[in-house]
Amino acid sequence: MVANNGLANTFACETEISAIENERLSYSGYDIDEFMQQNCDFEEVIFLLWNHRLPTTEEYRLFLTRLRSQYGIGEAVEACLRIQCRQNLHPMSVLRSTVSLLGVFDKSAENTDLDSVYEQSIALQAKIPGIIAAFYRLRRGLDPIEPDPTIGIAENFLYMLNGERPSQTAVEALNRALILHADHELNASTFAARVCASTLSDVYSCITTAIGTLKGSLHGGANERVFDMLEEIDLVENAEAYITEKLNSKEKIMGFGHRVYTKVDPRQIYLKDMAKKMTQGTVDEKWFFISEEIERVIREKKDLIPNVDFYSATVYHVLGIDKDLFTLVFAMSRVSGWLAHVAEQKRDNHLIRPRSQYVGKRDRVYVSFDERESMV
Amino acid sequence: MVANNGLANTFACETEISAIENERLSYSGYDIDEFMQQNCDFEEVIFLLWNHRLPTTEEYRLFLTRLRSQYGIGEAVEACLRIQCRQNLHPMSVLRSTVSLLGVFDKSAENTDLDSVYEQSIALQAKIPGIIAAFYRLRRGLDPIEPDPTIGIAENFLYMLNGERPSQTAVEALNRALILHADHELNASTFAARVCASTLSDVYSCITTAIGTLKGSLHGGANERVFDMLEEIDLVENAEAYITEKLNSKEKIMGFGHRVYTKVDPRQIYLKDMAKKMTQGTVDEKWFFISEEIERVIREKKDLIPNVDFYSATVYHVLGIDKDLFTLVFAMSRVSGWLAHVAEQKRDNHLIRPRSQYVGKRDRVYVSFDERESMV
Repeated sequence: MVANNGLANTFACETEISAIENERLSYSGYDIDEFMQQNCDFEEVIFLLWNHRLPTTEEYRLFLTRLRSQYGIGEAVEACLRIQCRQNLHPMSVLRSTVSLLGVFDKSAENTDLDSVYEQSIALQAKIPGIIAAFYRLRRGLDPIEPDPTIGIAENFLYMLNGERPSQTAVEALNRALILHADHELNASTFAARVCASTLSDVYSCITTAIGTLKGSLHGGANERVFDMLEEIDLVENAEAYITEKLNSKEKIMGFGHRVYTKVDPRQIYLKDMAKKMTQGTVDEKWFFISEEIERVIREKKDLIPNVDFYSATVYHVLGIDKDLFTLVFAMSRVSGWLAHVAEQKRDNHLIRPRSQYVGKRDRVYVSFDERESMV
Repeated sequence: MVANNGLANTFACETEISAIENERLSYSGYDIDEFMQQNCDFEEVIFLLWNHRLPTTEEYRLFLTRLRSQYGIGEAVEACLRIQCRQNLHPMSVLRSTVSLLGVFDKSAENTDLDSVYEQSIALQAKIPGIIAAFYRLRRGLDPIEPDPTIGIAENFLYMLNGERPSQTAVEALNRALILHADHELNASTFAARVCASTLSDVYSCITTAIGTLKGSLHGGANERVFDMLEEIDLVENAEAYITEKLNSKEKIMGFGHRVYTKVDPRQIYLKDMAKKMTQGTVDEKWFFISEEIERVIREKKDLIPNVDFYSATVYHVLGIDKDLFTLVFAMSRVSGWLAHVAEQKRDNHLIRPRSQYVGKRDRVYVSFDERESMV
């Protein structure tokens, strides 16, 4: 028996939420192309992921009402957020703690029936944008802006950042980005959330787990690093030399390659297109040109493909989001998928408990400190 | 291809930390019997789990000095703990948030070299008992007690609960319980911590993940429920009828059965022995007798064996620990194993990213709300 480090190609569960097949991504049977072509809202996709079907008009109206009534983050959470904003702290750690605190203060958190899970899911989905926006403002010394319960998640988030109504273009772009990041079958954070759910732990524990797991640079943490790289390169003509040097010193280039996709990451096509359109003729155009040049060099030299993180960095930057908050915006989207998987795990639960293979020393006998000294 | 829901009998990694083989548990090659017979301290086992060998006298002295210098939890964390103590909140959720906050406030949290990981591990191992004791006191309206940096983890924890020096018997019992719970190869919380570590996330994210996962009633949450059951039964003569009724209505009896052990849980032997000795001739004797009676009935009717949670409930109760803090004491021990696994994962990392098998509807076409209505 050989251990499968990384569990690559191991099927750890069945799901009705999303599929990656033939280099295509679909949500409950709808190819992501469908959502991009129809300009639908992120909220409709959330409903789909949680119910495995699209809502009727009446269901959707009710769903939006429930979601929007939960936008506020509450006083206790804001107080804890203020304590966490005093220093230069890692935003993903702050989000992790704040979501955990949401669970501490939710008196229904221990209710584990599926209706309660749905209610908690709505609360988490609704509040995370407000937490991120409040953190963005508090660390600038500004007070948080009250959410507007009459508008959608994407528009409301951009509004809460600056207190100004965002352009329709910006709202549409964020909507599309949120849809493209919403779910991706058993990525590491989703899998960690399911492991947590499988012990029958509560929804907040599962989402705290997922945020902590997304934080890693081999997962969500990559998009922030992509923008670091764009800034370091700064000019298109520097790109090839920069990348060549990194490749020669065997450094990992963030935003390239994927465990599952080999020819194309279908999400990246739309993000690239958005990055192009949003930067065209603006001061931000250079970020797109640098990105395109990096893509060309890496395809040529390493035959690696850009993934979802690569062009989303430029898209988020143009939307006015600080680069160290990029992964939080990823979380604000992916939480919809995490919550879908947590509910699915709870509906037909099997404790996820693999084995490890022991490869260390065997049959050792405890000896006293004195004897240990004489053995050295 | 069929999905292996639960990953039972799948070897997900290699390890040098612990092994369960032939119904025996060993830490880095030492059977747990060795530690029980030698009366060694929990700290020595921590060193073993983190270094895969026992320390020399000088190494151990240095290790204890480093560990004890980190006992204090700090003002910001205490402030957040005070906010979390105002209401009747779930202690595991509070521990999850507070450990996450420790990471927010540790300025070295993003340093990922192995020396920093070791330093962060020492901080986490050292501070968790203080967090639990502070929470125990704060929710009673009492101020936390400063740790004593001249004594070990077990003694210090019991001291911080009440401000009184614990008996030698109590310290020894807690030491033994901490050793027995320290590691257990890829249990769900440890596995979740490794998934988190595998994205190169930070140590605090991994331990927050593990605490959230341990919280579930199919994992650490079980020992609290065991004591609930003992209290409900209250008298030995009620036990058989109570258990029979539960079994007849197909309810799960907490503290019995294990995914890996089928004949005996080797940890339970020592915990049963401790529970017996500590309660003998005291008012708490009845809890032991009720437990023994439950064990007899369940062995007879279901052929299930008591696991680590079953007799530890009585041991913790006798030590003066509130039953809703039992799982936190489990965490205070198991964090040593979690940290060992996180470091091992980071030393030779492979992203843990299995696949899921899609079993939902396929090839669906997005239709407008109007068209959906007419389809209903």
